[in-house]
Amino acid sequence: MDTMWNEIDQYMQHWIREAGERIRDTFQTKLTIETKSNPSDLVTNVDREIEQFFIERIRETFPTHHILGEEGFGDELRALDGIVWIIDPIDGTMNFIHQQRNFAISVGVFADGVGMLGYIYDVVHDELYYAHKGKGAFMNDTPLPKLKETTISEAVISLNATWVTENKRIDPSVLAPLVKRVRGTRSYGSAALEMAYVASGKLDAYITMRLSPWDFAAGLVIVHEVGGIVTNLYGEPLNLLEKSSVFVSKPRLHQEILTEYIMKER
Amino acid sequence: MDTMWNEIDQYMQHWIREAGERIRDTFQTKLTIETKSNPSDLVTNVDREIEQFFIERIRETFPTHHILGEEGFGDELRALDGIVWIIDPIDGTMNFIHQQRNFAISVGVFADGVGMLGYIYDVVHDELYYAHKGKGAFMNDTPLPKLKETTISEAVISLNATWVTENKRIDPSVLAPLVKRVRGTRSYGSAALEMAYVASGKLDAYITMRLSPWDFAAGLVIVHEVGGIVTNLYGEPLNLLEKSSVFVSKPRLHQEILTEYIMKER
Repeated sequence: MDTMWNEIDQYMQHWIREAGERIRDTFQTKLTIETKSNPSDLVTNVDREIEQFFIERIRETFPTHHILGEEGFGDELRALDGIVWIIDPIDGTMNFIHQQRNFAISVGVFADGVGMLGYIYDVVHDELYYAHKGKGAFMNDTPLPKLKETTISEAVISLNATWVTENKRIDPSVLAPLVKRVRGTRSYGSAALEMAYVASGKLDAYITMRLSPWDFAAGLVIVHEVGGIVTNLYGEPLNLLEKSSVFVSKPRLHQEILTEYIMKER
Repeated sequence: MDTMWNEIDQYMQHWIREAGERIRDTFQTKLTIETKSNPSDLVTNVDREIEQFFIERIRETFPTHHILGEEGFGDELRALDGIVWIIDPIDGTMNFIHQQRNFAISVGVFADGVGMLGYIYDVVHDELYYAHKGKGAFMNDTPLPKLKETTISEAVISLNATWVTENKRIDPSVLAPLVKRVRGTRSYGSAALEMAYVASGKLDAYITMRLSPWDFAAGLVIVHEVGGIVTNLYGEPLNLLEKSSVFVSKPRLHQEILTEYIMKER
C-alpha cells in the first residue's frame, strides 16, 4: 500500500510544479474573469485550465480514482469511498487576479475519507508545503517540526475583518474579544496558504466561517501531520463533502480559544 | 542638485541590499526579543543592529544630514529642515519574529520636509520598491505604472480586524460598513509593505489608525510617485514628526471612502 502512495506522491511532485509553471506563464497574458455565486466569487480561465490539467493526468494514470474539483470538471461525489482527490486549482483567485501572488494550488488525496497526502503550492514563491500521513510534512526539502504551543496573548492568528463586522455567518461579538486579546491578527485571503502557515508555525491559528472542501482538504492533511487540530468553529470534525466554518490551531490553543471565546457565547 | 540625489540613491541601493543580507544571515541565529511600550510592541537585537548599520554609513558619507530612526540611534528632531533620513530597520518586527517573512526595511529621504527618495525592501523575497520624486517608481528593475482607479465594491483593501472591534483609536462602527462593501480585506502586519502593495496595485487602499513617521515615510514617497494619496484618516496631510492614522489610496477611491464612510460618521 505504501508503494502506491509513494507512486502518487512522485507523480504529484512533478504535476504540481508543472501546473505552477503554467500559471506563472499566464502572468503575461490577459485573464478572462467571470463571477460565480456573487460579485466577489471570481473564476478565471486559468482556474479552469489548471483543474483540467490535473484531471486529465489523474484519469490517465489512476483511472479508478475519484476527483472532486472546485471548478466542477471532476465527479459528482456523494460519498468518500475509495481514493478521492480533492482539488483547488487556484486557492485565492481574488489574490491571483489582483496581486499575482498569495494564491496556491491545493490538492488533498483521501482513502475512504482519511487524508493520506496533502499539497499546497505557493506558485509565485516556489514553496511547496506537503505531507504524507505518518511520514512527515515538508516545505520543499525542509521537514516541518511538530507545532509548539503558545498562549492566546502571544498568538498571531489569521482572522478576516469580515467575521467581526455584520455578516451572515456569525455574530461579530463572538470573535471580537479574541481579536483584542491576541498579539496580532492577519488576513491573507487564501485558506490553503493560511493553513500552510499554521502548519509551518508562521501563524498560531486560523479561523474562517465559510470554506468548501477543496479549500481545506490539503491543509487538513498537512496540519494533522505536524500535530495541529482542524475542526469547524465549534470543535466538530469537518465533512469533506460540505461547506463549513474552519478553525485550525495548535491543540492547547484550540482548546483555550474554544472554551474561553467560542463556546462561552454559544 | 539632481547629482546629489543620484549619489544618495546609488549608496542606498547598495546599503539596503547589504542590510537585507545581514538580516537573512540572522535567520539561523537566536533572536533577543524585548518588548517596548506594550507586550505586542517588540524589538530584537537585529532591529537595533540594522539601524546602527545605516546610521554609521550615513554619518560617514553625508555628515550634514539628519537621521530619525525607530530604535532611537538617530537624532532628536524637532523640525524637518535640511536633509532628513527616516529609517525603520525592520518594519513588521512581529512578522520578522513569528514568520521570518512579511517584513521590510523602510527608508525615506526628505529635503526640507519634501519626500525625495523612498525605499521599501522586502528582504525575504528580494523585492526592492523604490522611488525618486519626479523620476519614477520601481520594483527592482520594473517601473511601477501610475495607479488605475477602481470602485469601492471592486476594491481589495488592507484593514486590520482591530479597527472594527473595540479599540482606543476609532469607533468600530465607522469602518465596519466599508468592510462589508469592498470586494475583500487583507492584513499583512507591515505598514511599509502594505504601502508598497498599494503603490504596485496589489491593494487598492490601506487604512490604519496608529503609525509612526518611520512606518510611512518611505511609502509616502513611493505612493506619491505613482499618483496615489497619503493622508491621515480624515484626509489631512501627515506630519513627519508625529504619530498618526494613515489612509493610503488611489485618488478617486480615497475621496469616495472619505465622503461615504469616514466623514459621514464624524
